[in-house]
Order: sequence, then structure tokens, then C-alpha cells
Amino acid sequence: MNPFWSTLVHNLSPYVPGEQPKMPDLVKLNTNENPYPPSARAVDAMREELGSDGASLRLYPDPNADRLRGAIVNHFADQALTPAQVFVGNGSDEVLAHAFMALLKHDAPILLPDISYSFYPVYCGLYGVDHITVPLNERFEICVDDFRQGNGGIVIANPNAPTGHLLRLAEIERLVAAHPTSVVVVDEAYIDFSEQVVPTAIALINRYPNLLVIRTLSKSHSLAGLRVGYAVGNAALIDALERVKNSFNSYPLDRLAIVGATAALGDKPHLEQTRQAVMQSRASLTDALERLGFDVLPSAANFIFTRHPQHDAAQLATELRQRKVIVRHFKLPRIDQHLRITVGTDTQCQLLVDALREILG
Amino acid sequence: MNPFWSTLVHNLSPYVPGEQPKMPDLVKLNTNENPYPPSARAVDAMREELGSDGASLRLYPDPNADRLRGAIVNHFADQALTPAQVFVGNGSDEVLAHAFMALLKHDAPILLPDISYSFYPVYCGLYGVDHITVPLNERFEICVDDFRQGNGGIVIANPNAPTGHLLRLAEIERLVAAHPTSVVVVDEAYIDFSEQVVPTAIALINRYPNLLVIRTLSKSHSLAGLRVGYAVGNAALIDALERVKNSFNSYPLDRLAIVGATAALGDKPHLEQTRQAVMQSRASLTDALERLGFDVLPSAANFIFTRHPQHDAAQLATELRQRKVIVRHFKLPRIDQHLRITVGTDTQCQLLVDALREILG
Repeated sequence: MNPFWSTLVHNLSPYVPGEQPKMPDLVKLNTNENPYPPSARAVDAMREELGSDGASLRLYPDPNADRLRGAIVNHFADQALTPAQVFVGNGSDEVLAHAFMALLKHDAPILLPDISYSFYPVYCGLYGVDHITVPLNERFEICVDDFRQGNGGIVIANPNAPTGHLLRLAEIERLVAAHPTSVVVVDEAYIDFSEQVVPTAIALINRYPNLLVIRTLSKSHSLAGLRVGYAVGNAALIDALERVKNSFNSYPLDRLAIVGATAALGDKPHLEQTRQAVMQSRASLTDALERLGFDVLPSAANFIFTRHPQHDAAQLATELRQRKVIVRHFKLPRIDQHLRITVGTDTQCQLLVDALREILG
Repeated sequence: MNPFWSTLVHNLSPYVPGEQPKMPDLVKLNTNENPYPPSARAVDAMREELGSDGASLRLYPDPNADRLRGAIVNHFADQALTPAQVFVGNGSDEVLAHAFMALLKHDAPILLPDISYSFYPVYCGLYGVDHITVPLNERFEICVDDFRQGNGGIVIANPNAPTGHLLRLAEIERLVAAHPTSVVVVDEAYIDFSEQVVPTAIALINRYPNLLVIRTLSKSHSLAGLRVGYAVGNAALIDALERVKNSFNSYPLDRLAIVGATAALGDKPHLEQTRQAVMQSRASLTDALERLGFDVLPSAANFIFTRHPQHDAAQLATELRQRKVIVRHFKLPRIDQHLRITVGTDTQCQLLVDALREILG
């Protein structure tokens, strides 16, 4: 026990992010990054903000990031949002953290799927939020009816990670409607890779004051390196997030991130082009893996979750790494025989398939 | 009471940052920004990271920001630091927040000066840290002996804000040595504007395991818009911050901020040039205000703290604003007759002095 540490620190089990290797020649399929560059408009906007001498950087950014919140409202023009229904943060991880503290810390435990984004229970540890896990069914799907129990809130990812399974909007609505006194957080980090055009639960925001939808620019907008996430929900939920944020860090988004994210959200053709490319590669990668004998779960995300009936997953991951391909393996109950593989370019996917073919012999 | 809000949220009193006006033609002397552009090397590094198509931004940043931590070690080459003694975050506000949670939450209350950075008691509210305020003396100076009481930690700013008063290194050492079982946080946001060459408490890190020094690139490096701060201390203290950070947000610094801050810290001539310019302007602004009848406290920061014996401070701030000059007024006990005025360029300072001369009549 270090006497300088707060008691809390001794009890933390921090999140372990996927490796960010410094070797440039790896086929990096381990942290669900988009294989395509971001919108040229976003890059232009950041270059313009830098200008000739970076003089604007001497000034604090807008603490409320009004331009970015306006761009989010416009991005979902069909949904009749207002800026008061939008919260922005330094990546969706920060937005999630504030949500756990502001909206999910109650007397009753919150409900989490047993297999989902493994940061959720870490936030529980950080803020002293009790939680109960609700098992996915045997096909690794979230079943809304399994959440019918008293709770202080519900958090799900849709599509779920690392499974890739998508709940339809009607199911999300059933969940939100069945728990009117709980905040239901739907983490839509990967939803732009769904085939459906508008599956987003943002469509429900104006009817359900207990729904908070969290999104990120890291995946479908190819901006993991810029750290921008956001939440959409009833203004009272957003107000709670603002109160926590303004007690933590007035200026979480820097000037370059604000202008870059604003421009990226305005570039719908780029989003459409890259998401279609990823979905096509996902289909061909799925086919190729199935031909090698892998079981592949249906995925609505930019990754696939797969296992081989005859080969140990950890061993496969190690052998892939020896061939300079990195994928993600979780040493966790129920999924330690699976691999989560990011959908790269067709070239990257082919290198993966070639390496696997060599390993399987 | 909103039933969706955690109890905590109802009780928060968030920090209110200085206004970030959207009108471009104001003389903005209210949030202690540097009037000079950042290092050209920093701007070049960010432009290079953007490249032609921003392709690197599709990838997550290094979660540990090793290059930046190395640059901090090199920046203090005389101090024999190691990267394990350095923590980086999304502005010093985020670094401070993690320090309150990781190192200052104990059974005993922490000690804060009664007049200091007004975010400190906000962090206490956020994390449930009890605190006691220790009054500055009648000259608005921190007196180390006044902190001789049981405590769960001590936080001071040096130079203090909004007073500008600098404690000498020997006094800081007396404070740190007198409380060997408490973490002493010294917030050095403004210390580069001190006349002394090496007043930094980082010089004490290798002798006092209970000392944490927090710094920012927002002020002396002209990068308020980029959001980069850091802490230096014993590796065990840094480890506590890392554990909280990795339970909150794996990637708090984006790729542009990492490369920009790394290059800025390497550009010592730029730092020296701008800090000398600010110190010269501070001296001439002080003279000019004294000639108008203001009392000006000696300042080691890039702002001055001043009052006029015959004029109400709030009224002066309002009349300055009508003349497009904004300064900071705090409606707080003991200092509601003072103004905090950022040291701008000589031209900005002259506009301020001209406006004041007109107001005083």
C-alpha cells in the first residue's frame, strides 16, 4: 500500500487498450481503425486553422465547441435535434466516463452485457458504480428481455463489441421503453458500418428522455488520432454531462479537433464511400475465412469476430503476429477461443488470409 | 431533482472559465493567453503530421505519448528526470483532476490557499475531497508556516493565481519537507514568467517523494488552443495518475497535440524570447497603471493583479468592456475590488491604459 495513493487507486483495474505498435510495417487489424484516410475537408480545415504561424493556437478553444455541436445537429438533420441535446468530448471514452459518473451512479446496480466493450466495468470501478452482467445468448446476441430486472441504468453497445451483433431499432426502443426510470446508454461507436441506412437510436431521442446515444469519429470518420466523441440525448441528460465536464476540464477539445471534426461531419460523401468500402471488404473477408474453416459471426461493425473449431485462438494470434499481422484476442470467459479482426483494405485482408492459410497448413 | 442524475450532479458547482468571446476585435486580456504565436517548430511538426491527406489520423495516438514524455525529460535536462516521473494530459486541468482523485482523496481534508485557482475547490466537489482554506497574508502572499496542521494533501499555485505572487524554491522546499506524509501539489502554470532562471520545484523531485509539480503548455508556450499539460513527480505518484487515467480515457492526447507539444518543448529560444517580451511588457504596464493611481501587486506571472483605491473593480471591468477591452473580475471575498489583467503585447497594453485613462477621467 502506497500511503500517498487514494484508497480508490489501489482497487482499480485499468483498461488495457489494444497495442499501438511503433513498427510501421505491421498489418494492424487489432484496434478497429478505419483503413482509409479521413475526409480531405477535415484535413483542409485543420491546415487552415494552423495557418502560416499557428497564431490561433495561443487562444483557448471554445469551451462549448458550439460549431461542432452545430455540425452534429446538421449531420442528423432528419432527427430535429437542438444543440442542447448534444455533448462533445475528448473521444467517446471520455464521454462514456462522464456518463457513468453523471447518470449511472445510483443505489441500484447497472446492467451490462457479459460480453461487451471491456471499458464499461472499468468505469464502474473508477466511480464506484455497482453492476450486474446480463449474459448474451448462445449466438452472442443481446436479448432485450433478459434485462427485465431492477437497475440503476443500462449500458449496451450497438453493434456490440467485440461480437459485431446489431440490435434493430425496434429492439432498442423496447429496451428504452421498458425501463422508463433508468438511463439507457447506447454506444453506437460502430453503427455507421451497418447495412441499414438509419438504424441509429438517435431517432428515438425526442420520444424517450431516458436515452443517451454515444458516438465517435474514431471509426467511420477515420479520426481515431484526433479524439472526438459525442453524446445525443434529452437536454436534461446533456446538462448532467456538462456539469461534470465543467467540474473536470473546461476545454476538452482542442482547436484543431473542433475544426477537423466539424468538417468531417459535413462530408457525407466521404463517409458513405469509406463505409461502403469497409462493408464490401467485410463480406469478402468473411467468405475467405469461412473457406478456411472459420466460424464467423454476422457483423454490422468494421471488425469480425471469429473462431476456428480446430485451432486455439491465442495460438493463432501469436502465429499471426510472427507473420506481422496483429489481431485482438481477449483472455476472457466465453470468448477466449475467438479473435476480433478489424476489416482493413482488401490488400490487408488478403495478407491476413494468406498468413492464416500458411498457419493452418 | 432530476431522477436520472446521480446525486453528485445535483451538488456540483462547476467552474466558470473566463469568457472566450466570438467577436474578433476585442482586446482580450481576460484568460492569461500569451500574446505571441507558438513556436514555428511546433506548427511545422503539426503540419507534417497532417501531411497531404491526414492519413496518420486514422490511427490511434500512442496512449502513453512516449515522445512527448521524452521531450519533457529533455526540456529539464539539468534535473535528471526519467520518463517514469512524467505524466501527460489534456491540459493541466485534466492532470489536476486526476491528481485530486488519485492522490488527494484521503480521510483528512486537504489544504488550499483561500485565494488561488478557483478550479481547486471544484475538483474537491467532484471527487468528494474535503478541504480547508488557509488565508493568504494581508499582502496576498502564501505563508508556508500557516499550513502547519494535519491534512490529506496540499495544493498551491506558484506563482499563485490570480495574485501573481511567487514563493521562492527554498520556501517550497520548507513546505514539502514539513509534510512528508502528504502529497504537495505545486501548480506551476505561470512559472516561466518568473525573472529567476530556475525557480521550478522540479528541482526537488528526486529528493521528495511527496512532491507533484504540474505544468502547462497553455501559457509560456502559447498553446492554450492545443490542450497539453503535464505532471512531474516520484514514479509512484505518476503510477497513481496513470492508473486513474487508464480507467478514464486511454488516449487523452491526440496525434497533433503530441507532435506539436513535443516540438514546442524543444524550442528553447522561442520560449526565452516570448517570456522576455512578456516580462518587459509587464514592467511597463505596471508603471503605467501605477501612474494612473492603481495599486499593482508584484507579479511573477503573465498577468497583473491590481486595484484602484477610488474605483469599484466590477464597474471598471464593465466600462472597459464597453471600450472593447476585457479583463477578469472575480466576485469573491477579499478580491472583489481587484482586477486580473493579462499582459498582452505593448500595443494591447497601451489600448488598455488609454481606455482606463478615459474611464478615470
